[in-house]
Amino acid sequence: MPRGATRAARARAKVDLPVWQVRRYLEPGPIVLVSSALGAQRNLMTLGWHTVMEFTPSLVGCIIAGSNHSFGLIRASGECVINLPTTALTDVVVGIGNTSGAEVDKFARFGLTVQPAQRVRAPLVAECYANFECRLADDALVERYNFFIFEVVKAHVARSPRHPETLHYTGDGVFMVSGRIISRRSRFRPEMLG
Amino acid sequence: MPRGATRAARARAKVDLPVWQVRRYLEPGPIVLVSSALGAQRNLMTLGWHTVMEFTPSLVGCIIAGSNHSFGLIRASGECVINLPTTALTDVVVGIGNTSGAEVDKFARFGLTVQPAQRVRAPLVAECYANFECRLADDALVERYNFFIFEVVKAHVARSPRHPETLHYTGDGVFMVSGRIISRRSRFRPEMLG
Repeated sequence: MPRGATRAARARAKVDLPVWQVRRYLEPGPIVLVSSALGAQRNLMTLGWHTVMEFTPSLVGCIIAGSNHSFGLIRASGECVINLPTTALTDVVVGIGNTSGAEVDKFARFGLTVQPAQRVRAPLVAECYANFECRLADDALVERYNFFIFEVVKAHVARSPRHPETLHYTGDGVFMVSGRIISRRSRFRPEMLG
Repeated sequence: MPRGATRAARARAKVDLPVWQVRRYLEPGPIVLVSSALGAQRNLMTLGWHTVMEFTPSLVGCIIAGSNHSFGLIRASGECVINLPTTALTDVVVGIGNTSGAEVDKFARFGLTVQPAQRVRAPLVAECYANFECRLADDALVERYNFFIFEVVKAHVARSPRHPETLHYTGDGVFMVSGRIISRRSRFRPEMLG
């Protein structure tokens, strides 16, 4: 079991997050782990090409390449879970990105704890900081761009730390790390970034 | 002129970047400043909801709310520039997000240096670390989601630092900062994250 997973497995007690608030964790652009399931098959992939699209319904757009084993599972099931790893899982993230689900069960291979989701059949990764249960909301651009629009139907987030350290992929095996915070809350206006 | 802009204005000598490499700067999910122009009008907006969609052509998807003054300029001109600010411009970013281009010229208001682009009419913001000239490539989802798919047709990037410190918005006036690097280049496989 990779050391990273052991470390991260500590205290991932989670609470519900209102789904319109998932932007707090996804808008900063972290690498995520997307889990999927279809019949007896399940898989996990790394994903860096995603964007928040709407607060209510809570929409997230994701590019999932057709060559990826997860593509078929997600397209056919119409479901997935977006799991948010922290830097404690760096080596797990790299390992998952380097492995095909057509060959191995990545959950077992990387010592990850599977938990059942509440609204979808795709599993949650317990070691991740947050888990967003998603249903496919619009496949209009799947054929042309491999672009899936998901609705987040249930969100689970760890109680602590308040600001997790996340991984942001630049390509070529290099990640930027986010964690330090700059607050301009006092100058915040609700329409900001609208 | 805000102090941030003064500081950042130093040495922003730029080089061309092959457009398929813009993912290096956009995939980590930073807040960007999107500039636009239509006739004598020009504007600048903050934008946090974007994703890389393809390497070649170099495609980037962006949500631009219809209530934003920039929406009309970009839709009618079919062009924009995605400018990448660093943390040196934090207060400028917040100010731009809090201001409507229907009322003021944000370039003048925030002391930003306008440079002509090469392939589009929307201007470059000189103080930003990188500038990506974009043409609207697909508006299929503009009506339904305010989702614009742009092709990056020209990319300019500062020579240094190698890893700029960027802002990643979480909502509520709070930004995460990326800058520190974790490299797993030795374990990199080209298909990673595919």
